[in-house]
Amino acid sequence: MSSGVVVALSGGVGGAKLALGLSRVLPADDLLVVANTGDDFEHLGLSISPDIDTLTYVLAGLDNPVTGWGRRDETWSFMETIGALGGADWFRLGDRDLALHVERTRRLKAGQTLSQITGDICRRLGVSTRVLPMTDDRVRTRVRSDDGWIDFQDYFVRQQCRPVVRELAFDGVEKARAQPDIMATLLGGKLRAVVICPSNPFISIEPILAVPGLRAALAGCGAPVVAVSPIVGGRAVKGPTAKMMHELGLPVSAASAAGRYDDLLAGYVVDTADAAGVRAKLHIAPTLMTTLEDRERLARTVLGFADSLT
Amino acid sequence: MSSGVVVALSGGVGGAKLALGLSRVLPADDLLVVANTGDDFEHLGLSISPDIDTLTYVLAGLDNPVTGWGRRDETWSFMETIGALGGADWFRLGDRDLALHVERTRRLKAGQTLSQITGDICRRLGVSTRVLPMTDDRVRTRVRSDDGWIDFQDYFVRQQCRPVVRELAFDGVEKARAQPDIMATLLGGKLRAVVICPSNPFISIEPILAVPGLRAALAGCGAPVVAVSPIVGGRAVKGPTAKMMHELGLPVSAASAAGRYDDLLAGYVVDTADAAGVRAKLHIAPTLMTTLEDRERLARTVLGFADSLT
Repeated sequence: MSSGVVVALSGGVGGAKLALGLSRVLPADDLLVVANTGDDFEHLGLSISPDIDTLTYVLAGLDNPVTGWGRRDETWSFMETIGALGGADWFRLGDRDLALHVERTRRLKAGQTLSQITGDICRRLGVSTRVLPMTDDRVRTRVRSDDGWIDFQDYFVRQQCRPVVRELAFDGVEKARAQPDIMATLLGGKLRAVVICPSNPFISIEPILAVPGLRAALAGCGAPVVAVSPIVGGRAVKGPTAKMMHELGLPVSAASAAGRYDDLLAGYVVDTADAAGVRAKLHIAPTLMTTLEDRERLARTVLGFADSLT
Repeated sequence: MSSGVVVALSGGVGGAKLALGLSRVLPADDLLVVANTGDDFEHLGLSISPDIDTLTYVLAGLDNPVTGWGRRDETWSFMETIGALGGADWFRLGDRDLALHVERTRRLKAGQTLSQITGDICRRLGVSTRVLPMTDDRVRTRVRSDDGWIDFQDYFVRQQCRPVVRELAFDGVEKARAQPDIMATLLGGKLRAVVICPSNPFISIEPILAVPGLRAALAGCGAPVVAVSPIVGGRAVKGPTAKMMHELGLPVSAASAAGRYDDLLAGYVVDTADAAGVRAKLHIAPTLMTTLEDRERLARTVLGFADSLT
C-alpha cells in the first residue's frame, strides 16, 4: 500500500459517508478532510457551519442515521419554543446540535478561527481525523433564481430547493485565504491522493475549488486527484444535484459532474458506465453507500484506484 | 376600591410571586411591573435577563414550580452537551429557556430595545401584564468580596453566594436612562400605589432605585409607596438576603430591608412585629406565599393597605 496523506474534499451528507469510510481505512495522520463552508450562515444570531457539523457528527459516530444531518438522540424543545417567541423556525436546530452552534459562535466572537474551533470540537468529540474548513474567511454561496439572488440556506432549506437555479456565486471567495494547513499539506510533497467526495459539485466542491490558490494547488500537487461521481444511474443519491444540472442546462450525468473539474481529475469512480466524455480514467464500481461496509469498501476502491494512477 | 395604576418593583423569584398575585387581582392596564436588570449578563454569547425571564414565566404560568426559576416541562439536552464541547455549564439553561435567550440576543443585535423585546415576548406568551426593564441601558451588579470585585452571576450562581459580600456596585447605572414608560407612569398622575415586592433589597430593588431619576420619581409620585418585607421571622425566604445583611454589618431584620429605602416608604407590610425602627406605617400580615391563594391574598392586603395610606 502507498503511504502519504490523502486529502478529501467534502460537502455534507454524501461526502461525509466517504470521509467516514476513508477515516476507517487510513491512519488518522494520513487523512485530511477539507470541508466546504460556502453554505455556512448566520441564523438566530448563531454561526452555523452545516457541512463541518455533518462531517464532525458522522466522524464522531454522533450523526442521525435517519435524517443524515444533525445528531442522533436529539431533542427538539428549543425548536418547539423558538417559533412561539417569534423566532425563525424553518431551519431545524436540535437541542444538542444547538450547543455546538452556541459554543462556536461564542468562540468566533472571542477571536478564535473556524479551524481552531473545528479542531478543538473534533478532539472533544473523539474525532481523530483532521477536519478543516476550506478557509477561515467568510464565503457565502448564493443562488440566482428567476426571482433574483437569494442566500443558499434560504434556497436549500427554507424553500426546499424549489427555485430554479440559474446561476451560483460564492460571495467573498475572491478575498478568502485558503486554510494554511490545507495548502501546506497539498504542497508538502507527502501526498498520496486527493479524493473529491461524491458531493454536489455546484454547491459543495466548487466553492472549495474557488478559494484562491486551491485549484492550482490541486493541479500542481503531484498526486492523483480522483473524484467519485455524485450521480448514480442518472440520478442524484440525495439533494438537488440532478435538479441543478437540469436547470443549469447540463445533461444529468456523471460526466456533467466531472466536467466541473475535469482538468484536475486523473481518475473518476462511477457506478455505471454512463460517464462518456470524461477525460479522466474511469473506474467502475458500486458507489451507493448504504452500510458502513459500503463506505469502507468504496474508500478502499478509491484509494486503490488512485494508487494505480501514480 | 381605588383606581389607578399600580407600579410594582421586582427582582426574580420572591418578587414575581407578589407580581403574579397583583396581576390576578388587578385589571391588566392597572399594573406595571418594573424589573431589575442589574443581574442581566452575557453568557455563552447570549444576553440573559434572569429577573425579566422569571417574571415573564411566572406571569405566563410557564414557571418551574420546583426550582422557582426557568420553565416547567423543561429538557436539558443543550446543557448536557455544552460542557462536552468546552462551553461553560455552571449557569443552567434549559432547552426551552434557551430559545428566549437566543431570540432576545438576536433582536438586541438587530437594534430592538430590551423593553420592546420584553413586551413582544410577553404578548406572545399570553402575558397581559406590562413588564418593563428598569432601563434599556446596560447596568451590571458587581460584588466586592475579600478577593476583589466579581460579576454578580459569578457570585450568585457559579460561587453560589459563598463569597462574603463587602460592597455592591451597579456598573453603568449612573449613565442609564430610566425606561421612559416607567417614568411617564410614575409622573402621570394616575398612580394608585407603588409596591416594592419582597425581593432582595441589595441586588433586586436598589439597582432599580439607583437608576437616575427613578428614586426621585418615586418620592414625588404622590401615591403611597408600600414595601413588603423580604425577611420573615428574621430569615430570608429564599436567597442570600439574610447572609448579605449579616456580611454588610446590618441586623438581619425586616427593619434592615426597609432601611434601604425608608425615605420612600409610606407603609411596610411585615409578617411579624419585628420591624422596630421603621419610619413607615406598619401593617402586619402573613407574607409567606406558598399557594396561588397566598399570592392573591397578599396582593389584596398590600393594595388595601396602600389605599388606606392615601
